[in-house]
Amino acid sequence: MALALALGRRGQGTCWPNPSVGCVLVQDGRIVGRGWTQPGGRPHAETEALRQAGSQARGATAYVSLEPCAHHGQTPPCAQALIEAGVARVVSAIEDSDPRVAGQGFAMLREAGIDVTTGVLADQAARDHAGFFLKTEQGRPFVTLKLASSFDGRIATESGHSQWITGQTSRRAVHAMRATHDAVMVGAGTARVDDPSLTVRDLGIERQPVRVVVSRHLDIPLMGQLARTASKIPVWLCHGPSPDAERAKAWEGLGARLIPCALRDHHIDAADLLLQLGQEGLTRVFCEGGSSLAASLLADELVDELIGFSAGLAIGAEGLPAIGGLGMDRLDEAPRFELLETRIIGQDVMHRWARALR
Amino acid sequence: MALALALGRRGQGTCWPNPSVGCVLVQDGRIVGRGWTQPGGRPHAETEALRQAGSQARGATAYVSLEPCAHHGQTPPCAQALIEAGVARVVSAIEDSDPRVAGQGFAMLREAGIDVTTGVLADQAARDHAGFFLKTEQGRPFVTLKLASSFDGRIATESGHSQWITGQTSRRAVHAMRATHDAVMVGAGTARVDDPSLTVRDLGIERQPVRVVVSRHLDIPLMGQLARTASKIPVWLCHGPSPDAERAKAWEGLGARLIPCALRDHHIDAADLLLQLGQEGLTRVFCEGGSSLAASLLADELVDELIGFSAGLAIGAEGLPAIGGLGMDRLDEAPRFELLETRIIGQDVMHRWARALR
Repeated sequence: MALALALGRRGQGTCWPNPSVGCVLVQDGRIVGRGWTQPGGRPHAETEALRQAGSQARGATAYVSLEPCAHHGQTPPCAQALIEAGVARVVSAIEDSDPRVAGQGFAMLREAGIDVTTGVLADQAARDHAGFFLKTEQGRPFVTLKLASSFDGRIATESGHSQWITGQTSRRAVHAMRATHDAVMVGAGTARVDDPSLTVRDLGIERQPVRVVVSRHLDIPLMGQLARTASKIPVWLCHGPSPDAERAKAWEGLGARLIPCALRDHHIDAADLLLQLGQEGLTRVFCEGGSSLAASLLADELVDELIGFSAGLAIGAEGLPAIGGLGMDRLDEAPRFELLETRIIGQDVMHRWARALR
Repeated sequence: MALALALGRRGQGTCWPNPSVGCVLVQDGRIVGRGWTQPGGRPHAETEALRQAGSQARGATAYVSLEPCAHHGQTPPCAQALIEAGVARVVSAIEDSDPRVAGQGFAMLREAGIDVTTGVLADQAARDHAGFFLKTEQGRPFVTLKLASSFDGRIATESGHSQWITGQTSRRAVHAMRATHDAVMVGAGTARVDDPSLTVRDLGIERQPVRVVVSRHLDIPLMGQLARTASKIPVWLCHGPSPDAERAKAWEGLGARLIPCALRDHHIDAADLLLQLGQEGLTRVFCEGGSSLAASLLADELVDELIGFSAGLAIGAEGLPAIGGLGMDRLDEAPRFELLETRIIGQDVMHRWARALR
């Protein structure tokens, strides 16, 4: 099952709106088939593994990181394929929360006389599929917020000088993190000041994450990196009501998708923003700031994973903070996280935290 | 030698103004004596080890974490004691930079026909004795700056609520760190707001570090923890020129020592502050903020080791910053540090950095 989960994680960031599943077929203690959800979400992991196994699937045990699907979508249900291949036993990590599956995959298998075990490494599976489950259950994607800052939590000097705070090794690690998400998201300020391309570079990946920019007024330079590459790699602009018509037209002409979002207190409402992105099919979003967008997400407790890169330099109180105002009075109002790991990356400290349950 | 260095570190914080040295005597591959500098600085490590070894010191090898002293201070020179005990060989980690020793200890041993090797684990020894060397060479103590903050580098909410950001395990680790320093130092603001006792608690130590408070105007409450305990555990108040005479008298009455320091730009000059503390004999100072004192020390590149405790909560931009203004424009002006280690302590991340060489 650990192998099935690891295979499943290979597809993260590439198969949305589908879950990224892994499957291992074992016959007499020997692996006869391995599969994971392919880019775009098809073929499914089970189909891949069954194809590899061929006739050796008969009587085999299938380890699957998520309940096999039971519904006819663009492909026939995987539960049916496992039955037809003559698999003797199915071990699954966790039940699917998609109402079209939700136990029906297991039921279909059992009805066909297949031995079904579930709940194996369920905690890890819940974490791996958190984006898919959140989208199914709450309509929003899983949000990872990554903030790279100085020792004292600053992302630039007062004058805006910010390149580079963290080292090259950390920046490379960030590219690998981007690749495991469906989309990379920044606020308009970051898009204006840094002119980032937000692509995954030097890692040999085939499918780039969607680039999402949150900009109430669509005031993002039409001559920048994002504009230049919008026809090749998706750019989605999340904006407020009635944006400037000319800018909207220009961006659409460049190939960007415009996504209107609701406002709250004169800012784009973070909760609605994520619902819109969930609606578009995203399951995992990697937010890289800036400080206002980070603050909006944190204030609404919408950050599922928080990743810090801390560098060995001090910028001081005049520097730009990594997180904008949260308007809290007492510490018990603060959004809290539980430590997952800390690691040295190059000359920086990487620390990864999960949203604490209230 | 690694053992001698480890023994030497046991005395850190307790034997200033003397260096904290470790000594191991080995006879035929067997340890016959171990010693480290005792509280208050005497007896010296060599004396202790020789006492343990007795007649077995004859023909033994002495491993010493610092060059044995050659001068008559309050005790006879250790080089002489090693000679008289009949030690055959002395292996030392590093030469003493104190002009009263500086190679003369080794010379004295060699003249007596003792085989002398030096430079064994010299890097570690240089780090262990950094405080003593700094005081000897530059007249100032080694400075460790510890800052415990939220994920985003804040030490309190806007309204000043700060207890607790980091967890109990981290606070306990801080007490252990205090114990390895000669003094614990804070700014007046921290003394006023937190009313700390700055003592080492629950670790069973005998000798408390000196408590140093930096307060230009001596405006520290006369009813607080520090005032209440000043007669038992030293309190040193570093103040600017012509402090309020009544407050000065009151603090002296409570048992505090007053140390006048020079001003620069209307603040106590950090460089002069450290020279005064070096003058008083301190070799290792543990500074715990607040943000202004931290900024003064950092701006003058006087922080030798920087220790961060980062907790899993976000306070946001209105919160009080861990480090005050540094007035820099570009990142290349920032004080820089090299990572020594990162560790999980309770639910917090501890990261330790050494001042980077320019």
